[in-house]
Amino acid sequence: MLGRLRRLLPGPPTGETWFGDDAAVLRVPGPKGGPLLLLAADAVVGGLDADLALTSLADLGWKAMAVNLSDIAAMGGRPAHAVVSVVGLAPDEIEELYAGVLAAAAEYGCPVVGGDLSGGDQVVVSVAITGWVDGAPVLRSGARPGDQLWVTGAVGAAAAGLRWLRAHHGAGQDLAERSSEAVLVRAHARPRPAVAEGAAARAAGATAMIDVSDGLIADLGRLAAASSVGFDLLGVDQLPVAVGATVEEALSGGDDYVLAFALPAGAHAREEFERAGLPSPHLVGTCVEDARQRTSAGRALVAGGWEHDLYGTSRRTKDLPQ
Amino acid sequence: MLGRLRRLLPGPPTGETWFGDDAAVLRVPGPKGGPLLLLAADAVVGGLDADLALTSLADLGWKAMAVNLSDIAAMGGRPAHAVVSVVGLAPDEIEELYAGVLAAAAEYGCPVVGGDLSGGDQVVVSVAITGWVDGAPVLRSGARPGDQLWVTGAVGAAAAGLRWLRAHHGAGQDLAERSSEAVLVRAHARPRPAVAEGAAARAAGATAMIDVSDGLIADLGRLAAASSVGFDLLGVDQLPVAVGATVEEALSGGDDYVLAFALPAGAHAREEFERAGLPSPHLVGTCVEDARQRTSAGRALVAGGWEHDLYGTSRRTKDLPQ
Repeated sequence: MLGRLRRLLPGPPTGETWFGDDAAVLRVPGPKGGPLLLLAADAVVGGLDADLALTSLADLGWKAMAVNLSDIAAMGGRPAHAVVSVVGLAPDEIEELYAGVLAAAAEYGCPVVGGDLSGGDQVVVSVAITGWVDGAPVLRSGARPGDQLWVTGAVGAAAAGLRWLRAHHGAGQDLAERSSEAVLVRAHARPRPAVAEGAAARAAGATAMIDVSDGLIADLGRLAAASSVGFDLLGVDQLPVAVGATVEEALSGGDDYVLAFALPAGAHAREEFERAGLPSPHLVGTCVEDARQRTSAGRALVAGGWEHDLYGTSRRTKDLPQ
Repeated sequence: MLGRLRRLLPGPPTGETWFGDDAAVLRVPGPKGGPLLLLAADAVVGGLDADLALTSLADLGWKAMAVNLSDIAAMGGRPAHAVVSVVGLAPDEIEELYAGVLAAAAEYGCPVVGGDLSGGDQVVVSVAITGWVDGAPVLRSGARPGDQLWVTGAVGAAAAGLRWLRAHHGAGQDLAERSSEAVLVRAHARPRPAVAEGAAARAAGATAMIDVSDGLIADLGRLAAASSVGFDLLGVDQLPVAVGATVEEALSGGDDYVLAFALPAGAHAREEFERAGLPSPHLVGTCVEDARQRTSAGRALVAGGWEHDLYGTSRRTKDLPQ
């Protein structure tokens, strides 16, 4: 579908990016020297992107903001403003949803400045977000063979948290918060877009970046495809698997919203993150010349992601990357 | 609902407008002197904002763009870019929808630069749009007692076109195009946002402006409320009722997407529109001091709009103006 649509779409002028990345990159008309505008949109659909029996409306509102904030983070930009369209909720429910929307807006300094409300049979929360970046943003397409691949945090926590919620269906918020898996449940319910980390990766000289929303292998695959490189990950025992998550969840679970980025060998990722007061990123592999290669310590990997039916529902259509 | 939500929302810094207008007005960070950024979002819901038995998916795509383009027009701005989230359509249907989306994008020079596609049980097309304006945009809130009220075109055509389509349900596209009501049907199916007219009204010195999406009385009522004025329209026989439309359709029908604006007496609206090569706008009334007054030639009016159940469905919630 993506391919069919993109053939219909006109292409951008030099210096802009439309579609195919986490956010569009747009120039401000008028005198040069100002920042570039970032623009992205993502909708979350009740029952599809989130199981409303396991997710509160406040958490759904947080998530709708988080997936968009993460798109700006993945460009190395700073989020600016959001507009929110809500379909299919009653007034009390809208207020509950907005509690999560506004918590994320406040936490990330990205106020909601407009939007609309409509009736409907299914809950759909569509957010569009703007951001700014001074100078060139980090695209998906700049990685070169030999670049190292890093992630900004452990992977698999959100998928493990969802697994816990399913196993304890109906257990209630209290049990989830008291359990030893609370940190996993929170990673699923309130994912934290890596905005500061994205800026640090850009400052460190990242050549390509993407947010890990659909699983590490799937999203690294997108970065690699956009950059016309392949990749070889470290051995599975050396990857940053979240405590309590399975390897499968780490490699193919979605919704972690860490960032994956490529950096020329010899660049100083850890130092740049330390300077910014951030936890050290994790080295996970290397970009290779053969664009078809997807390996871990030389062994072939199978791409995963939502296609793995994480939510027990299948999407009729595939995400159209920004 | 609007009031409840707006109490939760933080307010804008000086010089910006968040919520409560057709689009948000935002400053570009960095050196002064550049344009202001406009940002708006509106979703159209199948079965609610459009009867999918009477509306093709291409027309739905056009409409989703048109309502957003109209939001930028109502600020006196120029549309820049759009992002589109589509829920609940199969690949072939998405392509049909996009034919209308891209036709509007091309016609108004507002390329689609991102978005996403999701499955779902109901068709929802959420568009967010950016625009630029050099200098101050026209808000809803600047009208003063004594200002004249103008509209950029005749009203009621879209509602009359919808009435024809309902009466000839299943007649097919051919009959609609051959009928003497073709111009009304087209006004419903492919509303034309008044982008050039909005810029001309701003150049003429408009003090307040709004797009007429929910009916002339309802939307003039919003402009008047935002400006703390009342209004007295001309007599009904002097209003620009579209040929073939009833007075009720002209006053309370929705989806016309003409602009209504206020202008100090003595300003030269007709001359400014003529200079821009546009049809002359229509004088429809005057702003008055008494903020409660809603009259036509001195006789009380009843506010209309979607509440009049134009589509035979009632919205559970009310539009949250930008």
